[in-house]
Amino acid sequence: MLRLLVLYGHPTDPDAFDRHYRRTHIGLARRLPGLRRYTISRGLDALQGEVPYHLVAELDFDNRSALDGALGSPEGQAAVGDLSNFATGSATFLVCDIEDVTG
Amino acid sequence: MLRLLVLYGHPTDPDAFDRHYRRTHIGLARRLPGLRRYTISRGLDALQGEVPYHLVAELDFDNRSALDGALGSPEGQAAVGDLSNFATGSATFLVCDIEDVTG
Repeated sequence: MLRLLVLYGHPTDPDAFDRHYRRTHIGLARRLPGLRRYTISRGLDALQGEVPYHLVAELDFDNRSALDGALGSPEGQAAVGDLSNFATGSATFLVCDIEDVTG
Repeated sequence: MLRLLVLYGHPTDPDAFDRHYRRTHIGLARRLPGLRRYTISRGLDALQGEVPYHLVAELDFDNRSALDGALGSPEGQAAVGDLSNFATGSATFLVCDIEDVTG
């Protein structure tokens, strides 16, 4: 399974970020073709030290070509284009193939 | 569901990190009481720019008290104590309650 991990840094206005993310961005990201699962962090805490991010989102796809297809689609362009409307902090996009090692 | 997200920064010796993580650390972390699921990133890429981390691990528990119990257990102490044997880069521990917004 291919996971897109989005790490949002602290925005200038956390309330505005949360409002826009809930009301608009989730709806846009949900429409990505091939999206298998989409989860967000409801609260974010650190075991020690400062919390470096405001929100973490995980979007799962079957494989890299499915992700690339989703991002290149009109729905993907709309979701990416929406970032500038709320992600006033950093936004780090990591792509990883997930391996279950639960044993 | 409560997720412990571990973001490992780039180690001084990536091969040694990978070897120790595979051969020793996974075995220790697997023994954490209450661990529901444990996944690691098989490859880590960035959509743009540099990849800020070497490996991402996700450890899922039922709730925060289950995580705290796991970390405080002898197995948890062994896993945490092992970090200094391979995590020569940074290690950021984020705790978040996962909300499924797939829709």
